[in-house]
Amino acid sequence: MSENPADDAAPVARPDLAAMVVPLGRALVAAELPVLRAHDLAMWAYAVLLRLDAEPMRSQAALAQAIGADKTRLIGILDDLAQRGLIRREPDPSDRRARLLSLTAEGHRVRTAVQSAIQEREERLLARLPEADRRGFLRALQALSALSAAELGG
Amino acid sequence: MSENPADDAAPVARPDLAAMVVPLGRALVAAELPVLRAHDLAMWAYAVLLRLDAEPMRSQAALAQAIGADKTRLIGILDDLAQRGLIRREPDPSDRRARLLSLTAEGHRVRTAVQSAIQEREERLLARLPEADRRGFLRALQALSALSAAELGG
Repeated sequence: MSENPADDAAPVARPDLAAMVVPLGRALVAAELPVLRAHDLAMWAYAVLLRLDAEPMRSQAALAQAIGADKTRLIGILDDLAQRGLIRREPDPSDRRARLLSLTAEGHRVRTAVQSAIQEREERLLARLPEADRRGFLRALQALSALSAAELGG
Repeated sequence: MSENPADDAAPVARPDLAAMVVPLGRALVAAELPVLRAHDLAMWAYAVLLRLDAEPMRSQAALAQAIGADKTRLIGILDDLAQRGLIRREPDPSDRRARLLSLTAEGHRVRTAVQSAIQEREERLLARLPEADRRGFLRALQALSALSAAELGG
């Protein structure tokens, strides 16, 4: 504790980053759930739609790895999405054993509608911050997200 | 997609906040683990030291609730911390059935050493960001951390 609380040179105590970031992540996930429920989508199903919209995948295993999901758990999710016409599974012309996974037009529509609703809520939250902090927060988050786990742990 | 990529009015696509914040939280927790291991502390033990340093607690139940821990799980953690002389459990003068939990001087020393080591690593990570983004990020995180779950979900 500094004897002079106004002393600028005194170290400013702050909570650890993890102690702020982890609960915030939990709250943000909780805030997504009503939107996902309204579209009858599990969180993993939404992750699948986002991933396949970015790029078709060559196998369920590759998709599972890309989104960090358990391969076995993903099977039911993919069956459901295919049955609802949101994704398609086709033989890969370049590898007959593989099945190319991609979004249908309807899958793209649902993915976009869900993300818009989620980000609309997020923007209401971000609007509570001063403009400069909001921009700094988003830029920092995107920069830190782009770092590898090794760099983050450094 | 805007026809003119330089058009400022075009919406800038960004990942959902949760998709950036949750993995970042996971990486930050992972980065704390070597520091905690070096001090032979479990993550919950560190949470206990931080909480009791902020304020002594009137019961194990109150402490468990304050840090969001499972009450049963906490018992072994507290036994270990008491045995190592990092916390003390004394009868509460104002309530004989209650046992006041607080840090010892050694507990405070360990808590401070661990937090310094953790935040030193964090500062190396934050140093990768432009100064303005770093400040905005920390201010935004602290502001968002102060919101209730209901406000975050709004």
